[in-house]
Amino acid sequence: MTANPILVEVTRGDMEESRHCGAISVVKSDGQTMLTVGDTQRLIYPRSAIKPLQAIYLIESGAAEAFDLTDTELALACASHNGEIGHITAVRAWLARLGLEEEMLECGAHAPRRNEDRAALVKNNLSPGPAHNNCSGKHCGFLSSARHIGLATEGYILKEHPIQQAVLGLIGEMADVSPDATPGGIDGCGIPVAGIPLESLALAFARFATGTGLDSKRQAAARRIYQAMVVEPFMVAGTDRWCTRAMRAGDGAFIVKTGAEGVYCGAVPEAGVGIALKIDDGASRAAECVMGTVLSGLDCLTEEQSLDLIGSTVFNVAGREVGEIRPHKEFHAQLLSLMDPKLVG
Amino acid sequence: MTANPILVEVTRGDMEESRHCGAISVVKSDGQTMLTVGDTQRLIYPRSAIKPLQAIYLIESGAAEAFDLTDTELALACASHNGEIGHITAVRAWLARLGLEEEMLECGAHAPRRNEDRAALVKNNLSPGPAHNNCSGKHCGFLSSARHIGLATEGYILKEHPIQQAVLGLIGEMADVSPDATPGGIDGCGIPVAGIPLESLALAFARFATGTGLDSKRQAAARRIYQAMVVEPFMVAGTDRWCTRAMRAGDGAFIVKTGAEGVYCGAVPEAGVGIALKIDDGASRAAECVMGTVLSGLDCLTEEQSLDLIGSTVFNVAGREVGEIRPHKEFHAQLLSLMDPKLVG
Repeated sequence: MTANPILVEVTRGDMEESRHCGAISVVKSDGQTMLTVGDTQRLIYPRSAIKPLQAIYLIESGAAEAFDLTDTELALACASHNGEIGHITAVRAWLARLGLEEEMLECGAHAPRRNEDRAALVKNNLSPGPAHNNCSGKHCGFLSSARHIGLATEGYILKEHPIQQAVLGLIGEMADVSPDATPGGIDGCGIPVAGIPLESLALAFARFATGTGLDSKRQAAARRIYQAMVVEPFMVAGTDRWCTRAMRAGDGAFIVKTGAEGVYCGAVPEAGVGIALKIDDGASRAAECVMGTVLSGLDCLTEEQSLDLIGSTVFNVAGREVGEIRPHKEFHAQLLSLMDPKLVG
Repeated sequence: MTANPILVEVTRGDMEESRHCGAISVVKSDGQTMLTVGDTQRLIYPRSAIKPLQAIYLIESGAAEAFDLTDTELALACASHNGEIGHITAVRAWLARLGLEEEMLECGAHAPRRNEDRAALVKNNLSPGPAHNNCSGKHCGFLSSARHIGLATEGYILKEHPIQQAVLGLIGEMADVSPDATPGGIDGCGIPVAGIPLESLALAFARFATGTGLDSKRQAAARRIYQAMVVEPFMVAGTDRWCTRAMRAGDGAFIVKTGAEGVYCGAVPEAGVGIALKIDDGASRAAECVMGTVLSGLDCLTEEQSLDLIGSTVFNVAGREVGEIRPHKEFHAQLLSLMDPKLVG
């Protein structure tokens, strides 16, 4: 097993303190590889980065139309949200329209991401509920489809439930893989996860970006999800989150979605590509840095936006700048040479 | 630059999801290498893992005796504590005995580590202060020395302050390095950090463990610090923390100390060795797993303790077991073969 290259370095003062290795695949929707860094054939769990594909089923099942779902709700279905008041309110309103109780979400409860939102709960003597789970929007999506089709809602997270079977099947079609044939596990929110090669994941996002190779119904569904994400980037993540900041900067030119354990996916319609990357050790700080570098290489960001989204400063507790998180020099040079703009579009 | 080997794998369901590479050095106090994994010559920042060595100065300066410091306070000087009520109370009492205000701690304030302690502050309408900083005990130590010697306390964190110069010099002597000659930076709590090869760091901890190669005054100081850490493991970290759990399990047989960005150091007097390890990507979950594996290989843990301290279960939000953090198979086998018990002692 060959080691993946160093993609990101974390410096402190005069030297590198830590480093992150990983793999990147940028693929065009006809399957042509635009960029391969590291082992892009190795199976990875896409985790939450695959939510935009899972949300396609919410359209295809007819649930989105039947329940008249808005951009807010479709963006929430793709979200790993902060559990801010805006997210919670929207999730609860969605559940109410479905006639369902919050307790029917089977994702489990965890505290909101931000200190201020945690403190607000404590001050009001409240405990976090399943709506606060960063995946609660995706779960509302599953429940919407189950409700619309007339399936049992209980156990909707289990692999054998028709909703999960349908969603896994859809991902398999988008990525040209057989999710049943690869190793699998259980996601943080309880639903099944299937191992997928990074390259196949990038292909699925290229198809998501362009519609190429999808039937007209799926094309329209993918477009609808894409649209909701770029219109409601706050709903996809939240205050100060990288996904939200990047999509605001992109202003419709791309979508990006983070996943646990260092995964990031993206779709860039104009370049006609899908992006999938995984940091070997699971670090988000590195995944964000690499996704920013790839987007910059694809000419999706201005110079100022690139500066803002690629690197980040390491501060110490007292607020002093003590280091930097940045693309590793060799990788950066390699990336820029490989991302020949003539290949794009 | 050769990549360091994979030391730890994180699994989910049927396959590996993430992996952590790193380097380990186990050295005897005469300089004999017992175990070398990966590049142990590369400079690393020891971060908080070096606190037990920094605390030696607190004894050598005469401050510990002059202020009649207890095991609690000496353990706090070596601590990266949780900011639990027990830690805060002890830090504040120490400052009061020095006649100093909490605001004279220059480490900066951050919230306590555990949710319950954060919530308690919110409920009482309090903000975290510098005493809550996980390094506040170490800073009380610096202030004690400055106060005892009659130095200015303001600016005690700066590299040019005599206290930091003395502490850097002491580390240099213990590790046979010249901290002034290597790259450096600023630590999370504001004090200077110097790059040190992992092997030199392990040597310093071997000397700390055994006293070999130290003058009698430093021998006694090291023994005093060691004693305080094993008597007060709660003060060194806190509830559910790996350092505390491991030292409780060891019952005096070793000390361990974590540092930010995946560093861990340890000292095992009976085996006569020092341990230093660094996870390339900075992950604590991996550093703990590797330190547990090394301690187990050194026969410092029972089988039950090894099980408890080496691996850990990955749970999802709803509390279901979904994966495992464990030593990588190849590394584990290699480690057990290299740690020939006949070499130890």
